[in-house]
Amino acid sequence: MKKYSFKNDYSEGAHPSILQRLIETNLEQAIGYGEDEFCDEARELIKKHLKKDASIHFVSGGTQANLIVISSLLRPFESVIAAESGHIAVHETGAIEATGHKINTVATNNGKITPEQITIILNSHTDEHMVKPKLVYISNSTEIGSVYTKKELQTLYKFCQENELYLFVDGARLASALTSSKCDLTLEDMANLTDVFYIGGTKNGALLGEVIVINTPVLAENFRFHIKQKGGMLAKGRLIGIQFSEMFRDDLFFKMGKHANQMAEKLAENISKKGFSFLTEPSSNQIFPILPNKLIEQLQQHFEFYIWQKIDEEHSAIRLVTSWTTPELQVDHFIEFI
Amino acid sequence: MKKYSFKNDYSEGAHPSILQRLIETNLEQAIGYGEDEFCDEARELIKKHLKKDASIHFVSGGTQANLIVISSLLRPFESVIAAESGHIAVHETGAIEATGHKINTVATNNGKITPEQITIILNSHTDEHMVKPKLVYISNSTEIGSVYTKKELQTLYKFCQENELYLFVDGARLASALTSSKCDLTLEDMANLTDVFYIGGTKNGALLGEVIVINTPVLAENFRFHIKQKGGMLAKGRLIGIQFSEMFRDDLFFKMGKHANQMAEKLAENISKKGFSFLTEPSSNQIFPILPNKLIEQLQQHFEFYIWQKIDEEHSAIRLVTSWTTPELQVDHFIEFI
Amino acid sequence: MKKYSFKNDYSEGAHPSILQRLIETNLEQAIGYGEDEFCDEARELIKKHLKKDASIHFVSGGTQANLIVISSLLRPFESVIAAESGHIAVHETGAIEATGHKINTVATNNGKITPEQITIILNSHTDEHMVKPKLVYISNSTEIGSVYTKKELQTLYKFCQENELYLFVDGARLASALTSSKCDLTLEDMANLTDVFYIGGTKNGALLGEVIVINTPVLAENFRFHIKQKGGMLAKGRLIGIQFSEMFRDDLFFKMGKHANQMAEKLAENISKKGFSFLTEPSSNQIFPILPNKLIEQLQQHFEFYIWQKIDEEHSAIRLVTSWTTPELQVDHFIEFI
Amino acid sequence: MKKYSFKNDYSEGAHPSILQRLIETNLEQAIGYGEDEFCDEARELIKKHLKKDASIHFVSGGTQANLIVISSLLRPFESVIAAESGHIAVHETGAIEATGHKINTVATNNGKITPEQITIILNSHTDEHMVKPKLVYISNSTEIGSVYTKKELQTLYKFCQENELYLFVDGARLASALTSSKCDLTLEDMANLTDVFYIGGTKNGALLGEVIVINTPVLAENFRFHIKQKGGMLAKGRLIGIQFSEMFRDDLFFKMGKHANQMAEKLAENISKKGFSFLTEPSSNQIFPILPNKLIEQLQQHFEFYIWQKIDEEHSAIRLVTSWTTPELQVDHFIEFI
Repeated sequence: MKKYSFKNDYSEGAHPSILQRLIETNLEQAIGYGEDEFCDEARELIKKHLKKDASIHFVSGGTQANLIVISSLLRPFESVIAAESGHIAVHETGAIEATGHKINTVATNNGKITPEQITIILNSHTDEHMVKPKLVYISNSTEIGSVYTKKELQTLYKFCQENELYLFVDGARLASALTSSKCDLTLEDMANLTDVFYIGGTKNGALLGEVIVINTPVLAENFRFHIKQKGGMLAKGRLIGIQFSEMFRDDLFFKMGKHANQMAEKLAENISKKGFSFLTEPSSNQIFPILPNKLIEQLQQHFEFYIWQKIDEEHSAIRLVTSWTTPELQVDHFIEFI
Repeated sequence: MKKYSFKNDYSEGAHPSILQRLIETNLEQAIGYGEDEFCDEARELIKKHLKKDASIHFVSGGTQANLIVISSLLRPFESVIAAESGHIAVHETGAIEATGHKINTVATNNGKITPEQITIILNSHTDEHMVKPKLVYISNSTEIGSVYTKKELQTLYKFCQENELYLFVDGARLASALTSSKCDLTLEDMANLTDVFYIGGTKNGALLGEVIVINTPVLAENFRFHIKQKGGMLAKGRLIGIQFSEMFRDDLFFKMGKHANQMAEKLAENISKKGFSFLTEPSSNQIFPILPNKLIEQLQQHFEFYIWQKIDEEHSAIRLVTSWTTPELQVDHFIEFI
Repeated sequence: MKKYSFKNDYSEGAHPSILQRLIETNLEQAIGYGEDEFCDEARELIKKHLKKDASIHFVSGGTQANLIVISSLLRPFESVIAAESGHIAVHETGAIEATGHKINTVATNNGKITPEQITIILNSHTDEHMVKPKLVYISNSTEIGSVYTKKELQTLYKFCQENELYLFVDGARLASALTSSKCDLTLEDMANLTDVFYIGGTKNGALLGEVIVINTPVLAENFRFHIKQKGGMLAKGRLIGIQFSEMFRDDLFFKMGKHANQMAEKLAENISKKGFSFLTEPSSNQIFPILPNKLIEQLQQHFEFYIWQKIDEEHSAIRLVTSWTTPELQVDHFIEFI
Repeated sequence: MKKYSFKNDYSEGAHPSILQRLIETNLEQAIGYGEDEFCDEARELIKKHLKKDASIHFVSGGTQANLIVISSLLRPFESVIAAESGHIAVHETGAIEATGHKINTVATNNGKITPEQITIILNSHTDEHMVKPKLVYISNSTEIGSVYTKKELQTLYKFCQENELYLFVDGARLASALTSSKCDLTLEDMANLTDVFYIGGTKNGALLGEVIVINTPVLAENFRFHIKQKGGMLAKGRLIGIQFSEMFRDDLFFKMGKHANQMAEKLAENISKKGFSFLTEPSSNQIFPILPNKLIEQLQQHFEFYIWQKIDEEHSAIRLVTSWTTPELQVDHFIEFI
C-alpha cells in the first residue's frame, strides 16, 4: 500500500465539483483562446471579489504566469528584485533570465521582502553600466510558508509607488495565504495593493490554471500578445474558465484554502505540544518542524515528505504540505507517531 | 439557439472516456511534473505504437511544443526552415523569434515542403554573415489540410539527414493525418522518419495536451530543463498522462481522428457533387470549398465557420473543420443547404 | 603585386586628417564611455547639420547600430518591416531575431519600400496570434545602390506616422546617398523625416564608428542602457568622437561621399557608353553592370570585385564599389579594359 | 588646467608605436571582417606566446567579448558562476542575462573564486527545476586588483575539468596581471589552464580591441557566427589586427603592463610607508588605499580618482588606477601630498 504523501499540494486531481462542472459543460461549443463565455463568467465572479475592474487572464502554470507577467512589464535593461528564496530565483530554471532579465536578490530570514532591503538594491544601481531595478516580486504565501499582513503589503506597495517600481505578487498559494489566521488580506486588498498578482489554481484544487489579475490598466495593454508568444494561451481556454467559475461561484476557492490551513494548524499545534520547534512560524499550508533524525526515519516508514534542511548532527527540518483534500485521518495518524 | 460551429476542432471539452478516467483516478496521489505513473503508462502505450524506444514528454499546447522543441535543438545562430503558411511562421506571435531564432520561409502551393525548396535556402546561406539553417519544420496535416505521404516523408528525411538538418513535425492534427485515406503513414513511420515530432491532443479530443516524441537520442539530453524553463512543465503532469493513456489504450486516439475525417469527407463529397471545387484537395479534417458569396451568406445564417480567402468578386473559399465529436446530423444539415 | 580591389568601401584605413587628429589628441585625458569632450564636440557639429536638437550616440559598427536601435524601440511582440534585400534580413546572422523580434519582409525590385507594400503587411496582421508590425527599416543608400528621394521619404514617413509605425534608416552608406545626384535629401531632412537614423563612418573614411541620431525624444529615454547591455559602449568613446568631429568640422564627411560617387559615376558612364546595361540604375557608390562572362574573366585578372548575380548563360552582373579614397587612376585603368 | 586623473587606464589614446603603424598601413587594401593579413599576423605573433594552436578572434570591447563568449558556450538552461564583484555580475547592464543566462554569484573577500565556493553552487543545483551551472567566469586581474597565481589557476582548472565546467578568464587587465610581481602566470599558462580567455587591449594602450583565445577546439566551432550575430565583427577588422601585431611584435604589450604596475607599486609603497593600509593587497595596476577623509579632500583638489567605499566615519578607500602612460612625475606629485 502506498504511503500517504505530505510532499505537496498538487498530488491529487481536482475538487469533485470542478470535475462535475467539466462534465456538464463538456459538449457545449465555445470559441477558443480564453474569449469564451466560461472565461468571461470566471472574470465576472472574480471581479466581484476585487470590487473593481481589472484585466484578467488565464494561464496553465506558475512559471508560465511569472515569466509572462515579468517579461511583459520590463524593458530589456530592467531587472526584478526578489528574495533569494523566491521561486523565480531558484526553482524556475532561469525562466526569467531566459526572457532577458536579471534578478537582483535580497537575503531574507523569512522569505518576505522589506523596503529597507529594496533600498539597498536601488542605492547600488546608479547608472547605465548596471541594470535598472523596476519590479518587486514577492510570493504570498512565500516559499517557506510565511504570509504578508495587510500593513506589510501597504507599506511595500507605497514604497514601490514612491520609487516607480511595479509590485507583482506570485499567488501560487494565495488561497492558503488569504485564509490564514496570520494574514488579514482579502482579494480586494490584493487588487488595491499590487500592480499585478496571480491567483493559483493548481495548488488549490484545480486540475491546472492560474489567474493573472492586472490592476494597473496601462500594464494590461497588448497583454494577450505576450501570453500567446510565450505559449501560454490554451486553445481550450474554457478548461480554466470553467474551473475558476466553479471555484468563485460559492467560495469553494476559500473553503479549499481554509481546509488546507486547518490541517496544517492541527499538525503544527500537536507537533508543538510535543516540544518541537519550527524553522519558520507555521502560518499557512506549508510547515517546517525541526525533528530528531531518528523520529524522521520512523515517520518516513509511514509517510512521504521532504527533508528540507539539516539543522545539526541530530536534527533536521522537514516540510509538510497539506491541501484542499488532505484527510484529517492522515493528519491524526501522523500525529500519533510524533 | 446557438448556431453549430465548424470553426475548429477544439470547440468542445474532451471525449467522455477521458473525463471518466480523470474522475476514477482523481484522488490517487501522484508525484508531480510528469514523473508519475500515469505519464509512464502513457509513455509505454505510445512506445508500443512507435515500436522503438524514444524520449517522451508532455506539454500543454502546440505553440509551447514548437517553441520548446525548436529552441532546444538549435544553437543561437541556427535557423528553422518552414513553409510560409507554417503555424510557427504566421500564427504564434513570433514565438520562435522570441527564443532568438530566424525562420527561413519557403512559398508553397499546398503547405508542404520539398527538398528542392530547402536546397534553395541552403544554397543562399553560405557564410557567417547569414544564419545557418539547421532544422526543417513541417506540419502533418498542414495548416491548409494537406497531408504528407510516406514516400514524401522518406524523401524529405533522407534529404535532411544528408544535409545535416533536423526534421521536426508539428502534429497538432496528426490524428487526422494518420487516419486520412490520403496518408499511408503510421506512428511507427513518424518515429523512423523524423528526429522529433509531437502528437496533438488538444485538437483531437483531449482537454489539452501534446506529446513530444524525441527519436534521436542525443536530442533528448537535458530536455526537461528546456520544458521547465519555458513554463511547459505542469505540476499536475498526471492530467496529460491520464488523458493520453486513455487515448492510446484502445485506439481511441485513432477513432477520434477517423471520425473527424469521415465527417469532413462526407461534407467534401457532397459539396463536390453539387459542382463546387476546393482551394486544396480535401485530405483531412479541414476542407476549403470555394462557394458563391450568396450561398456563403445563407450558410452563415445557420452555421459558424471562417471565410478563408477571397477568390474572385463573387466567390470565396471557406474553411470547414470537423472534429472527434462533430454530429453527423449537423453535417447532413449543412449539406442540405448547399 | 596585389590587384586593386573594387570589392568594398572599407578596404583601407581612415582619411589622413582623421589619423592626424587622433595623433594630436592622443595623450589628452578624457573620461570614458562617450561622455567626453570629443564626443560632445562631434554631437554639436552634427546638430548644426540637423538644425534641431537630437539624442546622439556612437557605436562601433552597423550590425550593432541596427540591433541596438531596433531592440530598444520594440516591445517583445512587435516586429520590423524590411525589404527582402535589407541588411538586417539577410546579412546580420539573425541579429534582430536574436534580440527576440521577427522581421516581416517585402519583396522589392530596387531595394526600396513603399507604403503599398507596408499596407499589405499591416492588413494581414490583425490579432494577438500574430506579431504586431511596429517599425519600418530602410537603408539609404540601399544594399543594391538605390537612393530615396525627399518626396519618397516624406511619403513614407507620413504613412508611418499615420499608422503608428516608427521609421528607422540604416545609413551605413548615408554619405554616398546624401551626395548622390539622384538624391535631394540633406541631414536636416533625415532629422525631420525619420524617428531614428544612423550616419555611417566605417564605409566613409573612418577607422570605425556609426552615429545613431534619435529625433523623437521619447525614443531616446534610457538609450545608453541599451548600448551598454548589447556591448556597444566603447570605453575609449573618444575614438569615435574625435573621428566624427573631424568629419563634420569642414564637410570632410560629404567630400568623401562625393568622391566615392564621382568615381562610381565615371565608371558607370563609361561602361554605359560601351553599350552595357545595369542591374539597377547607378545612383551611389555601388554599381551593378551586366557584362559578358568573358569580359568579366579578363577584368578579374587585373581587379578584385564580386560577381553579384547570374543573368543568363553568357552574362552576369558584377558589383563595383568605390570609396572616399578610390584613385581615379584605377578607375581609368578599369575603363580601359571594358 | 585639468587635474591629472587616476580614474582609469583608458583615459588616453594609444601607444605612439601603434598609431605609427596605423599610419604606415593606412592605404594598403585589406579584406574585411578579421580575415585580413594584419589579423593573421597578430594571430601568429600571439600563438608564439601561447606555444600552441588556438582559435583567435578580435572584438572591440570587454562586455562584447564576455557576452559573445559566454552565450556561445552555453545551452539555454546553463548558467555562469562568477564572483559577486565580477564585471559581468555588476557592471554590464545585465548583458549576460540579456542573452538568456543566469549568473550564479559567490561572495568573495578578494574577488577571486575557489573550488570550495563553486562546490556549494554545484551541490545546490540538483535537477531540472534549477539552472545547470556550466561555466566559471573569473577575471585576472580581478575588479579589485587581485591576481591569480599559477597554482591557484591550476587548481581551479583541474576542478573545472573534473566537474565538466568550462573555465573562461576575462583578461581586460591581463597585461597588468601577467607582469605583476604577485603573479607567476604566462600567456602559455593561460592557454593551458583555461578553455577560453581574452587579452585586453583597450585598458593596455590600444585604441580599442580585445583578443579572444579559444584553447579547447570544440568550443571554437562556428564561433564567427556568434561574433557576427552579436554585432562584434568589425568591417575594418584590420584596425584591431594592426594594433595587436604591434603589441606582440616586440613585447610592447608586456612593457605597457609593466609600466602600469611599476607606477602602482611606487604609489603603494609610498602610501604604505606613511602608515596607511589597503582594502586589498596591492598587486596590479589598481590599488585601493584607505585614507582619512580629510586627506582625500585635499588630494581631490589636485587629482581625479574614485572614492570606492566608506570604511568608517573618518576613513574611505579610494581607487587609484595607473596605465601604460602614467607619468612618473604625476605619481611623485601624488606622493608628495600624502
